[in-house]
Amino acid sequence: MPETIARLAIVGPGLIGTSVSLAARRRWPGLDVRLVDRADPIETMGDAPVVVLAAPVDAIIGILPRLARVVSPQALVLDTGSTKHAIMMAAAAAGIPQFVGGHPMAGGATSGPGEARADLFDGQPWFLTNPDAPDAVHRAVKFVEALGAHAVVLSDHGQEHDRLMAAVSHLPQVTANALMIAVVRAVGTDNLHWAGNGLRDTTRLAASGAAMWESVLASNSRELKPLLKTLAADLSALADGLDDRDLVRRFFEEAVRAKSCL
Amino acid sequence: MPETIARLAIVGPGLIGTSVSLAARRRWPGLDVRLVDRADPIETMGDAPVVVLAAPVDAIIGILPRLARVVSPQALVLDTGSTKHAIMMAAAAAGIPQFVGGHPMAGGATSGPGEARADLFDGQPWFLTNPDAPDAVHRAVKFVEALGAHAVVLSDHGQEHDRLMAAVSHLPQVTANALMIAVVRAVGTDNLHWAGNGLRDTTRLAASGAAMWESVLASNSRELKPLLKTLAADLSALADGLDDRDLVRRFFEEAVRAKSCL
Repeated sequence: MPETIARLAIVGPGLIGTSVSLAARRRWPGLDVRLVDRADPIETMGDAPVVVLAAPVDAIIGILPRLARVVSPQALVLDTGSTKHAIMMAAAAAGIPQFVGGHPMAGGATSGPGEARADLFDGQPWFLTNPDAPDAVHRAVKFVEALGAHAVVLSDHGQEHDRLMAAVSHLPQVTANALMIAVVRAVGTDNLHWAGNGLRDTTRLAASGAAMWESVLASNSRELKPLLKTLAADLSALADGLDDRDLVRRFFEEAVRAKSCL
Repeated sequence: MPETIARLAIVGPGLIGTSVSLAARRRWPGLDVRLVDRADPIETMGDAPVVVLAAPVDAIIGILPRLARVVSPQALVLDTGSTKHAIMMAAAAAGIPQFVGGHPMAGGATSGPGEARADLFDGQPWFLTNPDAPDAVHRAVKFVEALGAHAVVLSDHGQEHDRLMAAVSHLPQVTANALMIAVVRAVGTDNLHWAGNGLRDTTRLAASGAAMWESVLASNSRELKPLLKTLAADLSALADGLDDRDLVRRFFEEAVRAKSCL
């Protein structure tokens, strides 16, 4: 059974933060939730026993040193940033004893509290990690499961998470952006109505705003850069081999095999 | 009113060819449709007044010289290949007087007659071109409108069509393939279950088989190659600038602006 909590503080009332609030109130009706926006002093969170940091990655990294002076040493502090290693290092440096790095696999191309839902996390993986604070991780598992999520505990300080996300999340995002830009530069917006569902689906992610992504890419450049370089080299090599039927056939066959596993 | 036809020959009974058959029978019940597969002698089509070539681009180019000896000079010959300029040149060289290049914007990631539908073309654009045979184009417009499509007549020999398709169709296809391959090479198929809908949608096209694409890419390499080279250069430049917040912000803002038009 998850622990009963009386108060919850959420820093960053966007899509994820507001959904955490709705999911927590679904589980614990009457729960006192304090939403802290970027204009609010960090002290407005009061002495909540559970604090969720749902701001962009760089905002979380900026808050952590100040947070250490505000929260009680017993408070569980959980973040929801899209990259983990830089945040884990910042939390350790800030000296927050019950910190757990977290990443709910939820959200979408749009953001903001207007899309928030109490069931956003239901059945979705929620990564959790801090091998140096097993009791805090145990509490965090109970908390995210109470929100409906499927807790996935990682054994390192976020490096494996960041490596995986660079491939399955950050690379598709950046590729969708670059493709959308390339198509419009080539044919202009007036010719986009000739596109079928193929271009539409392939670029769905390109509607995502920059706000959260700036710090995601900056905090994961070490993992993402080599993937982007490899993809660029593959596309360039293919460009030189478009007339080579064997090469094109093998390229399509490898893609079909890979896609069949997704 | 579209002309009434008594017989229709279709070379290539795959998704498009079989859907042409179904849509034509919906419009003209009792129509005599002859489906010619790759194993059949081309003569099995008989003396149909309308012939639709729905084979892959290279198969169409291979059939055209033999077709000139089989069809009557009055027969409307319409193809459905995904690129047009190479086919237009081959038809002119073969001396088929009533030839019209065509491309229905229909189909999907899967192919084959099992997915065929009588309403596949309803309301969809169907490009038609041959500025040297306006009467044939007029007949082709009536024919594809009878199948439910929206005829779009092009004024050149397919060059503009091929330039547009390189951007809105061929580039997204190849990008989806390359992304799917890059992700699996980076993290293995065992980690694909961590992917959200973003990777799934961005790589939907990667399920497309090689069969039709080999000749599409080969026949449009002149248009597609520079687009691929530019996309590769953009991805490589971005890889070097992941820590540059202004560059990443402008990249996302340009993508959002472009996507808002699609």
